[in-house]
Amino acid sequence: MAAQFPDRPSRQQQKDARTLLELMTRIYPCAECAAHFKDVVRSMPPEVSSGGALRQWMCRAHNAVNRSLDKPAFNCAYVDARWGALDCGEELACDLSLGKPRR
Amino acid sequence: MAAQFPDRPSRQQQKDARTLLELMTRIYPCAECAAHFKDVVRSMPPEVSSGGALRQWMCRAHNAVNRSLDKPAFNCAYVDARWGALDCGEELACDLSLGKPRR
Repeated sequence: MAAQFPDRPSRQQQKDARTLLELMTRIYPCAECAAHFKDVVRSMPPEVSSGGALRQWMCRAHNAVNRSLDKPAFNCAYVDARWGALDCGEELACDLSLGKPRR
Repeated sequence: MAAQFPDRPSRQQQKDARTLLELMTRIYPCAECAAHFKDVVRSMPPEVSSGGALRQWMCRAHNAVNRSLDKPAFNCAYVDARWGALDCGEELACDLSLGKPRR
Protein backbone atom coordinates (compact mmCIF):
# COMPACT_ATOMS: atom_id res chain seq x y z
CA MET A 1 0.00 0.00 0.00
CA ALA A 2 2.89 2.33 0.78
CA ALA A 3 4.49 1.48 -2.59
CA GLN A 4 1.44 2.83 -4.40
CA PHE A 5 0.63 5.70 -2.02
CA PRO A 6 0.39 8.92 -4.08
CA ASP A 7 3.14 11.54 -4.21
CA ARG A 8 0.51 14.09 -3.31
CA PRO A 9 -2.15 12.27 -1.29
CA SER A 10 -5.48 13.94 -0.57
CA ARG A 11 -6.27 14.87 3.01
CA GLN A 12 -8.57 11.85 3.14
CA GLN A 13 -5.82 9.55 1.90
CA GLN A 14 -3.40 10.93 4.48
CA LYS A 15 -5.98 10.41 7.19
CA ASP A 16 -6.66 6.90 5.90
CA ALA A 17 -2.99 5.93 5.99
CA ARG A 18 -2.65 7.24 9.54
CA THR A 19 -5.82 5.42 10.57
CA LEU A 20 -4.67 2.18 8.95
CA LEU A 21 -1.43 2.19 10.90
CA GLU A 22 -3.21 3.11 14.12
CA LEU A 23 -5.81 0.37 13.83
CA MET A 24 -3.07 -2.17 13.16
CA THR A 25 -1.90 -1.50 16.71
CA ARG A 26 -5.22 -3.07 17.74
CA ILE A 27 -6.15 -5.67 15.12
CA TYR A 28 -2.80 -6.75 13.70
CA PRO A 29 -3.35 -10.52 13.74
CA CYS A 30 -1.02 -11.24 16.64
CA ALA A 31 -1.58 -9.56 19.98
CA GLU A 32 2.08 -9.44 21.02
CA CYS A 33 3.14 -7.99 17.64
CA ALA A 34 0.28 -5.46 17.77
CA ALA A 35 1.52 -4.28 21.17
CA HIS A 36 5.08 -3.95 19.84
CA PHE A 37 3.82 -2.09 16.81
CA LYS A 38 1.97 0.28 19.14
CA ASP A 39 5.30 1.17 20.78
CA VAL A 40 6.82 1.79 17.35
CA VAL A 41 3.97 4.06 16.28
CA ARG A 42 4.17 5.97 19.57
CA SER A 43 7.89 6.51 19.40
CA MET A 44 7.91 7.49 15.71
CA PRO A 45 4.60 8.92 14.50
CA PRO A 46 3.73 7.82 10.94
CA GLU A 47 4.62 10.24 8.15
CA VAL A 48 1.90 10.32 5.53
CA SER A 49 2.50 13.61 3.70
CA SER A 50 3.63 11.78 0.54
CA GLY A 51 4.26 8.30 -0.79
CA GLY A 52 7.99 8.85 -0.38
CA ALA A 53 7.62 9.96 3.24
CA LEU A 54 5.38 7.01 4.04
CA ARG A 55 7.76 4.51 2.44
CA GLN A 56 10.69 5.91 4.42
CA TRP A 57 8.64 5.71 7.60
CA MET A 58 7.69 2.10 6.81
CA CYS A 59 11.36 1.29 6.28
CA ARG A 60 12.33 2.81 9.63
CA ALA A 61 9.47 0.98 11.33
CA HIS A 62 10.59 -2.31 9.76
CA ASN A 63 14.13 -1.63 10.93
CA ALA A 64 12.90 -1.03 14.47
CA VAL A 65 11.47 -4.55 14.33
CA ASN A 66 14.64 -5.89 12.70
CA ARG A 67 16.69 -4.44 15.56
CA SER A 68 14.46 -6.04 18.18
CA LEU A 69 14.93 -9.39 16.41
CA ASP A 70 18.70 -8.93 15.96
CA LYS A 71 18.23 -8.91 12.20
CA PRO A 72 20.28 -6.67 9.90
CA ALA A 73 18.71 -3.32 9.02
CA PHE A 74 17.54 -2.60 5.47
CA ASN A 75 19.18 0.40 3.77
CA CYS A 76 16.24 2.78 3.36
CA ALA A 77 17.90 4.41 0.35
CA TYR A 78 16.86 1.31 -1.63
CA VAL A 79 13.21 1.17 -0.62
CA ASP A 80 11.78 2.43 -3.90
CA ALA A 81 14.06 0.13 -5.91
CA ARG A 82 13.04 -2.89 -3.82
CA TRP A 83 9.30 -2.20 -3.60
CA GLY A 84 8.38 -0.26 -6.72
CA ALA A 85 5.02 1.22 -7.59
CA LEU A 86 2.79 -0.49 -10.14
CA ASP A 87 3.08 0.43 -13.80
CA CYS A 88 -0.40 1.84 -14.31
CA GLY A 89 -0.10 2.03 -18.10
CA GLU A 90 -1.31 4.90 -20.24
CA GLU A 91 -4.83 4.68 -18.86
CA LEU A 92 -3.47 5.09 -15.31
CA ALA A 93 -6.26 2.79 -14.13
CA CYS A 94 -4.32 1.82 -11.01
CA ASP A 95 -3.11 5.34 -10.15
CA LEU A 96 -4.54 6.45 -6.82
CA SER A 97 -4.01 10.10 -7.80
CA LEU A 98 -6.72 9.77 -10.46
CA GLY A 99 -9.83 11.81 -9.90
CA LYS A 100 -7.90 14.58 -8.21
CA PRO A 101 -6.87 17.85 -9.84
CA ARG A 102 -3.77 17.46 -11.99
CA ARG A 103 -0.69 19.43 -11.06
CA MET B 1 -6.41 -10.36 9.64
CA ALA B 2 -9.84 -11.93 9.31
CA ALA B 3 -8.36 -15.35 10.14
CA GLN B 4 -7.21 -14.06 13.52
CA PHE B 5 -10.16 -11.74 14.23
CA PRO B 6 -11.59 -12.65 17.68
CA ASP B 7 -14.77 -14.67 18.14
CA ARG B 8 -15.97 -11.91 20.41
CA PRO B 9 -14.32 -8.70 19.23
CA SER B 10 -14.45 -5.58 21.36
CA ARG B 11 -16.46 -2.62 20.08
CA GLN B 12 -13.17 -0.97 19.15
CA GLN B 13 -12.04 -4.04 17.20
CA GLN B 14 -15.36 -4.18 15.36
CA LYS B 15 -15.06 -0.50 14.53
CA ASP B 16 -11.46 -1.02 13.41
CA ALA B 17 -12.39 -3.86 11.06
CA ARG B 18 -15.17 -1.78 9.54
CA THR B 19 -12.83 1.21 9.20
CA LEU B 20 -10.12 -0.92 7.63
CA LEU B 21 -12.46 -2.18 4.93
CA GLU B 22 -13.84 1.29 4.33
CA LEU B 23 -10.46 2.93 3.94
CA MET B 24 -9.40 0.23 1.52
CA THR B 25 -12.07 1.61 -0.82
CA ARG B 26 -9.85 4.71 -0.94
CA ILE B 27 -6.23 3.60 -0.53
CA TYR B 28 -6.25 0.04 -1.86
CA PRO B 29 -3.12 0.25 -4.03
CA CYS B 30 -4.93 0.25 -7.38
CA ALA B 31 -7.50 2.93 -8.13
CA GLU B 32 -9.71 0.76 -10.37
CA CYS B 33 -9.74 -2.09 -7.84
CA ALA B 34 -10.47 0.35 -4.99
CA ALA B 35 -13.50 1.65 -6.92
CA HIS B 36 -14.72 -1.91 -7.53
CA PHE B 37 -14.22 -2.74 -3.88
CA LYS B 38 -16.27 0.31 -2.97
CA ASP B 39 -19.18 -1.16 -4.96
CA VAL B 40 -18.76 -4.46 -3.12
CA VAL B 41 -18.78 -2.79 0.30
CA ARG B 42 -21.81 -0.73 -0.64
CA SER B 43 -23.82 -3.67 -1.89
CA MET B 44 -22.89 -5.95 0.99
CA PRO B 45 -21.97 -4.09 4.20
CA PRO B 46 -19.10 -5.76 6.10
CA GLU B 47 -20.07 -8.05 8.97
CA VAL B 48 -17.73 -7.62 11.90
CA SER B 49 -19.70 -9.02 14.83
CA SER B 50 -17.35 -12.01 15.13
CA GLY B 51 -14.34 -13.57 13.45
CA GLY B 52 -16.61 -16.16 11.82
CA ALA B 53 -18.96 -13.50 10.46
CA LEU B 54 -16.05 -11.45 9.12
CA ARG B 55 -14.46 -14.47 7.44
CA GLN B 56 -17.75 -15.38 5.76
CA TRP B 57 -18.14 -11.79 4.58
CA MET B 58 -14.59 -11.80 3.22
CA CYS B 59 -15.35 -15.00 1.36
CA ARG B 60 -18.48 -13.53 -0.21
CA ALA B 61 -16.57 -10.36 -1.11
CA HIS B 62 -13.83 -12.46 -2.73
CA ASN B 63 -16.46 -14.38 -4.63
CA ALA B 64 -17.99 -11.14 -5.91
CA VAL B 65 -14.59 -10.37 -7.40
CA ASN B 66 -14.22 -13.94 -8.68
CA ARG B 67 -17.55 -13.61 -10.49
CA SER B 68 -16.55 -10.33 -12.10
CA LEU B 69 -13.36 -12.03 -13.34
CA ASP B 70 -15.18 -15.18 -14.50
CA LYS B 71 -13.28 -17.20 -11.94
CA PRO B 72 -14.86 -20.09 -10.03
CA ALA B 73 -16.33 -19.23 -6.64
CA PHE B 74 -14.72 -20.53 -3.45
CA ASN B 75 -16.97 -22.68 -1.25
CA CYS B 76 -17.33 -20.53 1.87
CA ALA B 77 -17.94 -23.61 4.02
CA TYR B 78 -14.18 -24.27 3.75
CA VAL B 79 -12.91 -20.82 4.71
CA ASP B 80 -11.73 -21.73 8.20
CA ALA B 81 -10.07 -24.91 6.93
CA ARG B 82 -8.23 -23.01 4.18
CA TRP B 83 -7.21 -19.93 6.21
CA GLY B 84 -6.87 -21.08 9.80
CA ALA B 85 -6.10 -18.96 12.82
CA LEU B 86 -2.62 -18.98 14.35
CA ASP B 87 -1.78 -21.47 17.08
CA CYS B 88 -1.09 -19.02 19.91
CA GLY B 89 0.38 -21.64 22.22
CA GLU B 90 -0.30 -21.91 25.93
CA GLU B 91 0.78 -18.33 26.55
CA LEU B 92 -1.77 -17.10 23.99
CA ALA B 93 0.70 -14.35 23.07
CA CYS B 94 -0.84 -13.92 19.63
CA ASP B 95 -4.48 -14.07 20.78
CA LEU B 96 -6.23 -10.76 20.07
CA SER B 97 -8.83 -11.57 22.73
CA LEU B 98 -6.16 -11.21 25.43
CA GLY B 99 -6.61 -8.32 27.81
CA LYS B 100 -10.38 -8.54 27.66
CA PRO B 101 -12.60 -10.14 30.29
CA ARG B 102 -12.73 -13.90 29.95
CA ARG B 103 -16.06 -15.51 29.20
